[in-house]
Amino acid sequence: MPDRIYNFSAGPATLPYEVLLQAAKDIVNFNDKGIGLIEMSHRSKDFIGVADACESLLRELMGIPDNYKVLFLQGGASTQFVMVPMNLLQPGKSATYLNTGTWSKKAIKEAKLFGNVDVAYSSEDTVFNHVPLPDEYEAAANAEYLYFVSNNTIYGTQFHQFPETGTDLVCDMSSDILSREIDVSSFGIIFAGAQKNMGPAGCTVVIIRDDLLNKTPDNVPTMFRYKTHADTGSMFNTPPCFSIYTIGLVLKWLKKLGGIPTIEKMNREKAELLYQAIENSDFYKGHARFDSRSIMNITFNLPTPELEAQFIREATAVSFDGLKGHRSVGGCRASIYNAFPREGVEKLVDFMVAFEKANS
Amino acid sequence: MPDRIYNFSAGPATLPYEVLLQAAKDIVNFNDKGIGLIEMSHRSKDFIGVADACESLLRELMGIPDNYKVLFLQGGASTQFVMVPMNLLQPGKSATYLNTGTWSKKAIKEAKLFGNVDVAYSSEDTVFNHVPLPDEYEAAANAEYLYFVSNNTIYGTQFHQFPETGTDLVCDMSSDILSREIDVSSFGIIFAGAQKNMGPAGCTVVIIRDDLLNKTPDNVPTMFRYKTHADTGSMFNTPPCFSIYTIGLVLKWLKKLGGIPTIEKMNREKAELLYQAIENSDFYKGHARFDSRSIMNITFNLPTPELEAQFIREATAVSFDGLKGHRSVGGCRASIYNAFPREGVEKLVDFMVAFEKANS
Repeated sequence: MPDRIYNFSAGPATLPYEVLLQAAKDIVNFNDKGIGLIEMSHRSKDFIGVADACESLLRELMGIPDNYKVLFLQGGASTQFVMVPMNLLQPGKSATYLNTGTWSKKAIKEAKLFGNVDVAYSSEDTVFNHVPLPDEYEAAANAEYLYFVSNNTIYGTQFHQFPETGTDLVCDMSSDILSREIDVSSFGIIFAGAQKNMGPAGCTVVIIRDDLLNKTPDNVPTMFRYKTHADTGSMFNTPPCFSIYTIGLVLKWLKKLGGIPTIEKMNREKAELLYQAIENSDFYKGHARFDSRSIMNITFNLPTPELEAQFIREATAVSFDGLKGHRSVGGCRASIYNAFPREGVEKLVDFMVAFEKANS
Repeated sequence: MPDRIYNFSAGPATLPYEVLLQAAKDIVNFNDKGIGLIEMSHRSKDFIGVADACESLLRELMGIPDNYKVLFLQGGASTQFVMVPMNLLQPGKSATYLNTGTWSKKAIKEAKLFGNVDVAYSSEDTVFNHVPLPDEYEAAANAEYLYFVSNNTIYGTQFHQFPETGTDLVCDMSSDILSREIDVSSFGIIFAGAQKNMGPAGCTVVIIRDDLLNKTPDNVPTMFRYKTHADTGSMFNTPPCFSIYTIGLVLKWLKKLGGIPTIEKMNREKAELLYQAIENSDFYKGHARFDSRSIMNITFNLPTPELEAQFIREATAVSFDGLKGHRSVGGCRASIYNAFPREGVEKLVDFMVAFEKANS
């Protein structure tokens, strides 16, 4: 293995090294068939095999029930901000949204183009440092769905308890899908951009309960109807082949590792190492409230913006990359998704201790 | 170089071998920086450099004027079938479409959701075996734009003369962009899926004259407004990084080769070899009318469907892959995009001559 930096990027994010090596091989010559993976017709037997295997593995790992469709779409979560209300919300109807950060705000903005939006909770006045507990909000009467973001990458918060309102849940799970066990059957729609826990940018996975496919108004364009993609196995048009292929490799890696129970345990341990380091110090201060702390994105501040800049500069110099907080919140952020190695977290903790000693 | 099959796929299609080798290297370790290309934040200096270089090269090779924006989007040409009318056509307004095949039909269907669609020409009653000459149609009075597909992959037809109607031209150039010299300034919008002449699936290039960015109605969702992407350098959300990177490699390859004038000459020679083989025989019959023949997709029939099936079977056995015609038209199709090697065409011609001798 060549020298690899520790990549704390919030996404696109670090991937398992063995996945990169396999992708490099198949890009040039897929399964020794004399054709590169990215040159293959999406309707070839070989590529359909790749896509089918990817879907099967996702179903197996997440325990996706048979009455849910799995779609591999393009356009990122940002396109889902539109597709969800375009398919499920109409003038005169309502949907409930929980505003827990930048991504839910963007989703709320788009939903307002289609119907009534009831924002049942917002943590904006505390710089989104927490998500609500189940008893802190209610879904609007007759809400078509309740929309929330399970993990807020920018603020380092995460729902520890999912909503229980009797309304169909629509969840943007972009930054924590596959990181912990969930019960898919308690959701109406789960969607997630691939570029954090699943693979390269360019593919959005949508898991949708099949009765929701038939709620779309007639005037919705073909490409933006979930049913179009459900009916064609995500091959209505050319799909993002390379991303789907690589997601399949990541899922294989995850299965070999022991699946979601194993990775959840590893993720909790990695996060705990960092949170302990923060708690054991008066120098570092976590941004997220205890009951909302994310196991994927750990956000923290140093005593001054100058020290934060110095910290990031010195960390980068010793190969800890991507620790700068999102421009909308500042500070530092360590994104430690599934594929981020534990030893990188341990080394960052050592670095933090040494930096504090040298600068406090 | 390992044994490579001859990949006549209509898309995703064959790519230059040196591009595959470079991509394989960078996927594991980009520029020896200890991070794989597909793990890099899209907002990192390195990736922004990749995206900027790609845009610059495209501008240089195609001679794109400064008053045009270049966007790298997701969702394929099929999403452009919607975005074009969503941004430019409103109730009570009209647009003119030329119906020259499956893809224009699909675009027409979507446009009808937004405004009046005037189909000024259709070659459907001759199984789309030709495209119209400029004097065979007129744009509707006050048409917002005239929409056409420059090359019809499925039928093997191509516009030899572009429309000259005084209306803004919107062109789906998915299957012949970069294959021949064009004057970008005579178009309002050019769009093209990457997976034929530019790179892997997952990215759609849109070239749009900047005054058209301001025509979008207020109620169009953020992700579907051209201006959103123009204002953010196609980084409003995470772009399809790997596709953009690979397009950049293909453009570098094309520039080294001599640019579009050189590849156009090569493409015309390759196509001529196949058309000559068809013309010199009573066994093979070309589908496209002479004045509409494509230099990218050569479509032809054999005396019977049984012989066509046998031809494709025997061709596949000797490593000519992807020669089966599209399911909507049948017969055979040889897609010979920019990266398809001349020697593959020569060998196919030899194979065709031998097959005819053995079976006529």
